[in-house]
Amino acid sequence: MKQQIISDHMQPDLSKYKHKFQMRVRNYHVDSLGIVHNAIYLEYCESGRVEYIRDLGFTILAGGFLKNGIKVMVRRNEINYYNPARTDDLIDVYTRIAYIKNTSFCFEHVLLNAETGIFYCDQKSIQVNLNTETNKPERLKDVYRKMLIDFEGDNIEVIE
Amino acid sequence: MKQQIISDHMQPDLSKYKHKFQMRVRNYHVDSLGIVHNAIYLEYCESGRVEYIRDLGFTILAGGFLKNGIKVMVRRNEINYYNPARTDDLIDVYTRIAYIKNTSFCFEHVLLNAETGIFYCDQKSIQVNLNTETNKPERLKDVYRKMLIDFEGDNIEVIE
Amino acid sequence: MKQQIISDHMQPDLSKYKHKFQMRVRNYHVDSLGIVHNAIYLEYCESGRVEYIRDLGFTILAGGFLKNGIKVMVRRNEINYYNPARTDDLIDVYTRIAYIKNTSFCFEHVLLNAETGIFYCDQKSIQVNLNTETNKPERLKDVYRKMLIDFEGDNIEVIE
Amino acid sequence: MKQQIISDHMQPDLSKYKHKFQMRVRNYHVDSLGIVHNAIYLEYCESGRVEYIRDLGFTILAGGFLKNGIKVMVRRNEINYYNPARTDDLIDVYTRIAYIKNTSFCFEHVLLNAETGIFYCDQKSIQVNLNTETNKPERLKDVYRKMLIDFEGDNIEVIE
Repeated sequence: MKQQIISDHMQPDLSKYKHKFQMRVRNYHVDSLGIVHNAIYLEYCESGRVEYIRDLGFTILAGGFLKNGIKVMVRRNEINYYNPARTDDLIDVYTRIAYIKNTSFCFEHVLLNAETGIFYCDQKSIQVNLNTETNKPERLKDVYRKMLIDFEGDNIEVIE
Repeated sequence: MKQQIISDHMQPDLSKYKHKFQMRVRNYHVDSLGIVHNAIYLEYCESGRVEYIRDLGFTILAGGFLKNGIKVMVRRNEINYYNPARTDDLIDVYTRIAYIKNTSFCFEHVLLNAETGIFYCDQKSIQVNLNTETNKPERLKDVYRKMLIDFEGDNIEVIE
Repeated sequence: MKQQIISDHMQPDLSKYKHKFQMRVRNYHVDSLGIVHNAIYLEYCESGRVEYIRDLGFTILAGGFLKNGIKVMVRRNEINYYNPARTDDLIDVYTRIAYIKNTSFCFEHVLLNAETGIFYCDQKSIQVNLNTETNKPERLKDVYRKMLIDFEGDNIEVIE
Repeated sequence: MKQQIISDHMQPDLSKYKHKFQMRVRNYHVDSLGIVHNAIYLEYCESGRVEYIRDLGFTILAGGFLKNGIKVMVRRNEINYYNPARTDDLIDVYTRIAYIKNTSFCFEHVLLNAETGIFYCDQKSIQVNLNTETNKPERLKDVYRKMLIDFEGDNIEVIE
């Protein structure tokens, strides 16, 4: 089964991405059409976010996402599928934070075949920062805002 | 652990939905925060679509989605998360087709707790109809367009 | 793709089973061979155990398995695969408790196609009852032992 | 949540293992008890087998497992769970082939925490070689038997 290009969608602009992580497509990620199931790409993107966060110096905790009083939940996902990935494909997961608002921020991802450059999908994931006790949205602390802004530089949009 | 309401988002308008299907949250759908993982809701929605399609009289095939030369792929997903579901919650998955274009059509879903009415999420999933040999988008055949339009009635938008 | 019989293994003896639950194979349970992935059958069996437990009158809790100070963990799984299940197959999941020892007990499962009777797999799952604070194995309380024994009757083996 | 040792089971004998592969526990591998779900370890073991096979020089194909007319299916899994893994744990997956019979062979796995050495589980997976057209078991070809035996050396048992 040859890797078939279904979409001739324009290749993504990678110039704003400073973080890349690789995932291997496993046999159990694929559905009965022989292609990665549409929900699984959200797992790849989440793994990209975790590695991004780790590389920024955060500690990943077993019981949730981060320590130091950070509790983040996904508020919205958007994903466009261009070409299907298949078993054993090696995927480059590009991750960046596109903007920070008061209580929320937005990850963007691009997924490409690491060897052929085939464009699989792009994704936006809006995260909201919750008060760890009330579970109500609250402003992300300045110390963390600074870490994200320092890493992303001019590519991040700060919307107050 | 009490079911905690995080979002006071307005309840969804269910009046346009003619199809409902129930899913039970399983222990393996939940992540380390104790809530259903964000990718899993896409599985619930897909199950809703399959049951919708079955109830319209289509035959589900083992090797893909439908018989009679229909090959449909997900082109885009959008999902908003309002409140988290937890292990053993019973979910009402509401499914409808919001519009049909030439080669694509759009499913919309609303997911609620079947007992308490807690609003979990809403989702849009844009599907594209592919030629089974070339894998290029092609117009969904009139016989199938008619089935969908007959079922949805005035609630479906036809965009030529 | 016709349902192909791979194994002519003898059909299972169902006479000892008093509990049956149905699961539908979903597209995302299947791997790139077009058959249900070997790990997914453990999910089907676990769902069978949860429904068995529910039907005995236990309350399933969001944060774990059961209330009333029961914390049960899987200690061992054994599973034999005879014929593969495919997308949209309807599976009869038969569940029983074969024996109870001091701190552990053993679930047995048989999975068959609900329409054709094709024998998919059989499974044994040994569970251990843990002290909820120390996480060390402790004797399952008599009130629960009695519930299981009353339900299973002569088919359960009690090994003290 | 500290990594808690539940079982004081004897550490495994690793001296026979020549292949190690690392997996990271992701948030979506964990269930509502905050520990990796029992079915997911079978995915880790399968990934270990794929990397073992790749490292021996086989080509992994998108449509199945291997090229050159090899079609292998899982016939039986056995797995013992000693201590639970949690989100973000790094797992050493040790893989070896313990024996080869006429039409079948047996993978053995040991999974340990890569940093602390905590013993998570051990697994046996019996694979059967199928004729690619009839789907009936047939003898694994000598060229492949030789590759496995050459790699494993004295540690593999050949049972004719």
